[in-house]
Parts: sequence; structure tokens; C-alpha cells
Amino acid sequence: MAADVNTEQSAKMWIPIIINFIMSIGAYCITVKVIPSIKDKFIKANLFGIDMSKTTSDKIPEALGMVTGCTFLITMFLFIPVPFGKSLWEGGFPHNEFVELIAALLSICCMLLLGFADDVLDLLWRHKLLLPTIASLPLLMVYYVNFNSTTIIVPKPFSEYLGLSIDIGILYYIYMGMLAVFCTNAINILAGVNGLEAGQSIIIAISIIIFNLIELSGNLWKAHQFSLYFMLPYTATTLALLKYNWYPSKVFVGDTFCYFSGMTFAVVGILGHFSKTTLLFFIPQIFNFLYSAPQLFRLIPCPRHRLPKFNSKIDKMEISTTNFRYSDLSFPGKTMINIFRVFRLIWWQEKNGYVVTNNLTLINLVLYYLGPLHEQGLTIILLVIQIFCTCLAFVIRYPLAHYFYDV
Amino acid sequence: MAADVNTEQSAKMWIPIIINFIMSIGAYCITVKVIPSIKDKFIKANLFGIDMSKTTSDKIPEALGMVTGCTFLITMFLFIPVPFGKSLWEGGFPHNEFVELIAALLSICCMLLLGFADDVLDLLWRHKLLLPTIASLPLLMVYYVNFNSTTIIVPKPFSEYLGLSIDIGILYYIYMGMLAVFCTNAINILAGVNGLEAGQSIIIAISIIIFNLIELSGNLWKAHQFSLYFMLPYTATTLALLKYNWYPSKVFVGDTFCYFSGMTFAVVGILGHFSKTTLLFFIPQIFNFLYSAPQLFRLIPCPRHRLPKFNSKIDKMEISTTNFRYSDLSFPGKTMINIFRVFRLIWWQEKNGYVVTNNLTLINLVLYYLGPLHEQGLTIILLVIQIFCTCLAFVIRYPLAHYFYDV
Repeated sequence: MAADVNTEQSAKMWIPIIINFIMSIGAYCITVKVIPSIKDKFIKANLFGIDMSKTTSDKIPEALGMVTGCTFLITMFLFIPVPFGKSLWEGGFPHNEFVELIAALLSICCMLLLGFADDVLDLLWRHKLLLPTIASLPLLMVYYVNFNSTTIIVPKPFSEYLGLSIDIGILYYIYMGMLAVFCTNAINILAGVNGLEAGQSIIIAISIIIFNLIELSGNLWKAHQFSLYFMLPYTATTLALLKYNWYPSKVFVGDTFCYFSGMTFAVVGILGHFSKTTLLFFIPQIFNFLYSAPQLFRLIPCPRHRLPKFNSKIDKMEISTTNFRYSDLSFPGKTMINIFRVFRLIWWQEKNGYVVTNNLTLINLVLYYLGPLHEQGLTIILLVIQIFCTCLAFVIRYPLAHYFYDV
Repeated sequence: MAADVNTEQSAKMWIPIIINFIMSIGAYCITVKVIPSIKDKFIKANLFGIDMSKTTSDKIPEALGMVTGCTFLITMFLFIPVPFGKSLWEGGFPHNEFVELIAALLSICCMLLLGFADDVLDLLWRHKLLLPTIASLPLLMVYYVNFNSTTIIVPKPFSEYLGLSIDIGILYYIYMGMLAVFCTNAINILAGVNGLEAGQSIIIAISIIIFNLIELSGNLWKAHQFSLYFMLPYTATTLALLKYNWYPSKVFVGDTFCYFSGMTFAVVGILGHFSKTTLLFFIPQIFNFLYSAPQLFRLIPCPRHRLPKFNSKIDKMEISTTNFRYSDLSFPGKTMINIFRVFRLIWWQEKNGYVVTNNLTLINLVLYYLGPLHEQGLTIILLVIQIFCTCLAFVIRYPLAHYFYDV
């Protein structure tokens, strides 16, 4: 009998995942076909960019993330009935699981819309922060009615003072809302080199898939099965995009792709109850965000573009720079920059009373340490860093977490 | 006691509607402010048209339905928790009602995305038919799990042969899917005169609101309350759009608006169980579709644009025409055109072996009967026809239906 129960549960766990996997392969094939056939429409619609790191000045279609977003959504729409199997006609339909799926798709669809609007219309920064917050509202509402667990486990060293767990209430919702805003923007600011946006997203997605597969054997397998439903077609469609976005790029992914990806990661993290682990897979993005902060918050001047500079003579990428008078900086600006200098995290030159430093992005930092690099090599190094950080994340999540939590 | 129950139900019915109404007023005010401030971004993004019925050739921003769609969605997102009131913290949360709301918003959001993609990228006709079908899948799925009532009542004259009701099963789902496709395209093809798209949509929305208010006193009040949640903010945001789209148009609404509107009507019709009544409010659109069919299906030649022609000398609109050899038409084409001639539904002239007729749209038909009209007058006449048809719809729905159904 027990074996039967196990077999049945195993079937319930794996059959929808396998169907999802097969559908994802289909989505990959369709996306690979659609992108080249539709890309001229993007150029015609004035959605194109000139690749500043090439000697040619061809028009490269921009915002092709719209295509992967749509094939992803269509795949998911067709997949919707699958996980519910027999309950569709035998009764006992799990409305609470169904609404999770629908609300997750609503938030993702909203971000795709916003991303495309941003690519077309060039929205203002305040919209970029406000709109993901609003797009995540249905998600938070579902979290509220389905779980409303706002208790966090206190790490062992602090549990003496704070107790084993504390209920942080509304703060937990603010945290989740901010996670959505962070994820949608984090990928967008680690960008500018052929293949980097799609590449890093695939590594994050595969990391989440590995994590989900490990956790499928646990008690919370349903949450991880749910996450796989999204991550498999996401990875498939993004692989198709990377095929054309890899050096030398024939298409650009656009803000559309970055927003869509970020929201997809936030959605599975929030509804799968592993938002902290999701964040662990964002280590390079978090570092890049913190490192960029002095420029993002205008403590030191920030040019319109911070991408590395292409040196056509040697066909390599070099750091791009910003310059300012040290005395013009505010106190927090001076403090930050001095911290970076102490830790040798910044390239620094003084010239006629001006200071010249690299633009504060992880990409420029890599170029500062390694010297000029070919664009493809630069992307590969950044992706290797991403993979290394995923390994680090697994070390933190599994062996290390035992020191801090009773797992 | 009975009075208490009534008061409680009355409060449950009206309080969310009143809150929704107040939020809709807010949405109107915000939309009125946002449109003029954002419209230059549309022109910059190459989203503009030249008004062919004016002597000037200013760039008029196109696809402003994107703005009303977004303010509508934001209003709805903020409204989501309201209808659930106490059940949010007291337990007994109605997941089935919640999922209706979320799935409806998902379908609407999808169509907004598709509409905007169409305005930007100029999609092909097959996409315009395929994508609304896919966008309506979550809706049909919700219908399936929440109601799955595919039984239709047979009108009295036929009930002797067919029984009182028949279950048409899967056909009902095909009907609902086609309703979504029809609604999204029907408004789009009755267009081309300043203020017509937004104007007709407002009249349809107000017709649905009146119908919902009448039916609130019935047993199915919940379905009509649900419909009002959507129709009130929809009407408010569209009124704001009409303010700028009315003659002489300062903005155009775009396919974005037509698709978004059509899906919103389809959603409330399907989930509110009054899809037949919804169709009654589309009489002019249905007539226009049937009348256009010979051109849409290329039985007679169809030029790229079928809008009426502007005569700048008299500042009036005149019929636009198409020409062909009668002998070139296929048999169905000849039949259709002869039927139209018999019923005097077509302007017809023969010249050097060619036939010249008006383009087959309701707008041209009105101009054929009434002669050249000023653009604003033409819009007003078309809207009056729409209002007249709404009155007709109410006559069919209430007094007449009693002859055919036991109500």
C-alpha cells in the first residue's frame, strides 16, 4: 500500500513536470523560428540600437524579449490545465493552487507590458520603481490569502535574544514588494555586453531549477514543482533568445526582457517560499547594485551610459570613466569613494584638479582587474563569475545554513 | 431579523461598488492629467498618425489606449482586496470569486499587451485572430472550474422539438472563445472618425452598467456586481480618453484601446453570464461586421484604408469607394453584392466597364443615405445609432424575451 501511495505521489509530481518540459522544448523551437522572422518588424518600428562595441553600424533590433515573453506566456496558458489533472472532472478542484498560477502570470504579463512600454516610450525612473510595485500587488494578495506567513526564523546566534522566530508582519510584505522591484531592475543594470542579460538570466534560472530538483524530495515539493512550471519554459525561451543575442548580437533583448525575467524570478521566489535562496542566486547583481549605488543615487556623477568603451584598434573592451572634482562631492560620496579606494575597488587617476574613475559597474571592475578584453571573453568571464556565485550560494544554502538554522 | 439580513446583504452589495465608483473618479482625474503630459513621448517613439480628415498635417499621437489601459489596471489592482472585506481576516475566503477577478485581469492585461504590440509592430491578421483566442484561455478555464454550465435554454417555439434546454458542451467554449475574438476586433473595424472608437465603447459600457444595475435586484446580483467592478473604472478612464479623442482629436486611441475594450466587454459578459445580452449591445458592430464581410474576406476588393474621404473644400466627409469588374467577382461575391443592391444597402455606379461602390462600412452607409457630413456630425449620428440600438437591445432583452423564454 505504502508503495502505491508513493508511486501515485511520484506520478503526481513528475507527470506535469515532464509535460511542461516537453512543451518547453516546443517553445524553444518556436521561439528560434519566430525571432529571425519578426525582427525586421522591430527595426521598422524604430525599435533598434547601434552596437557601440562594433566597427559596423548596422541597426540591431531591440526589445526582442517581447517575443520570448509572449512565447513563454502562450506556453504557460496552454499548460494551465495540466497540473490539475483528474481534479478537473472528478471534483475537489484546488482553487488556491489555481489562483497562484493565474496571479503569477498576471504579474509577469504586467511586467512584460511595462517593459515593452519602457522600450518604446522611455519611461521615467519613478515609473520604473512604482510600476513593478503595483504589478506585484496581485502576487502579495495571493500570498496573503494562501499563506500569510510573515514569520521569519531567527538565526541561532540571535535566537537567545529574539526567540526562535519573530513575526515581522507588514514588513514581510514590504520586503516582498521590494524584492520584485529589485529583481526587475537588477538584471537591467548588469547589462551592456552582448549576451550578458540573457546569459546571466539563464544561469540564475538553471540555479533555481537545480535547487527545485533537490527540494522536490522534501515536504514542500509542491512549491518547487510550481517553480519548475515557470522556470523550464522560461529557460527554454531564453536559450532561444541567447542564440541570437550571443556575440556578435543579431538582436538585443531590451528592458522588456530584463523586467520580464526579474518578475519571473521574484514570482517563483515569493510563491515558492524561497525568496532568500532566490536572492542568493543574485549575488553578482546585488554586488553590482551596491557598487553602482554611488552613481545611481548621484553621489558621484553618472553619465547616460556606463557601458565599457570599445577600442576598435585592438578590438577589445576597456573601462569607461567618469570625472569630477573631489571637492564637489558630498560627504557620503567622499566616504563611499574612499572605502572603494581602500579596498582597491576603483580605478583612480588625478588630472588637472579633476579625478577620473571607472564607472561603477561590475563589468568595468572586471576590466580594471584583468585589463582590456575581447567582448566575447568579457561576457564569458562575467558568466563564469555568475556560475561561481551560484556554487557559493549552494554552499551557503546547504552546508553553511546548518550552522545558523536547525534544518 | 429579515430586515437585518437585507441590510447586511445590501451593504455587502453596495459598499464595494461605491468604493469602486470613488476610485473610478480618481482614475478619471489621473488619466486626464497623464494623457497630455505623456503624449509627446508617443510621437517621439514614432507612434503617431496624420489625421487624413483635416487640412493640417500635425502629428497626432497614436495608441493612447495604452494609458487608459494602464490606469484601468492600476485601479483594479488597488481595488482587488476591497470586495473580500471581512473574509480577508475572518476566514472563509472565497477563492473561486478571487480567481475570477485575477483571471479576468490576466486576459485584459494580455490583450492590452497584444494591442500595444500591434500598434508598434503592425502584426499580421492571423496573429490578430490567434492571440485573443489564447488570451481568453485563462478565462475559459475559470469558467470551466467555477461554473461549467454549457446548457442553453431553448426558445419556446423550438422547445417542443429540442426540449426545454440542451447541453451544447464544448461548443459553448468555442462560442465564448469566438466572442472574445469578435469583441476585440468588432470595435477596431467600426473606426476611423474622431471620437468614434471611444464614444461607442462608452455607450456599450454604460449600457452594460444600466443592465447590471437593473439585475442587481435579482438572484444573480453577484455576477452583476462583478461586472460593475470592471465597467465603472473602464468608463471613467475611457471618458478621460474621449476628452482628448473627440473632434478635433488631439490623440488617437489605437488598436491598443480597441483590443483592451473588446476583451473587457467579453470578460464581463462571459464571467457575468450575460454574454448574449452583451452581444445585444453590439448590434451596430455586428451589422458593420456582416456588412464588411465581403471586403474582409476579399470577395470584393478591399483597399488598405476604408475610412470616408475628407473633402477639404466643403469641410465634410464623403463616402470612400472601391472599384472592380463585376465579371471578376466569384459567385459568392456576386450574390452578396446583389443582395445589398436589392436592399439598397450599397452605392453603385458603372463606369467604362468597371463598377464603383462605396467601401462596405456602416460609416460609408450612413454617408450614402445622408449625404456628405461634417466629421463631428458624422460621429454624433453614429453614436446616436449606437444609443438607439441599446434601447432596441433592452426591448429585446426585457419585453420581447418573455415571448421566447419563461423568465
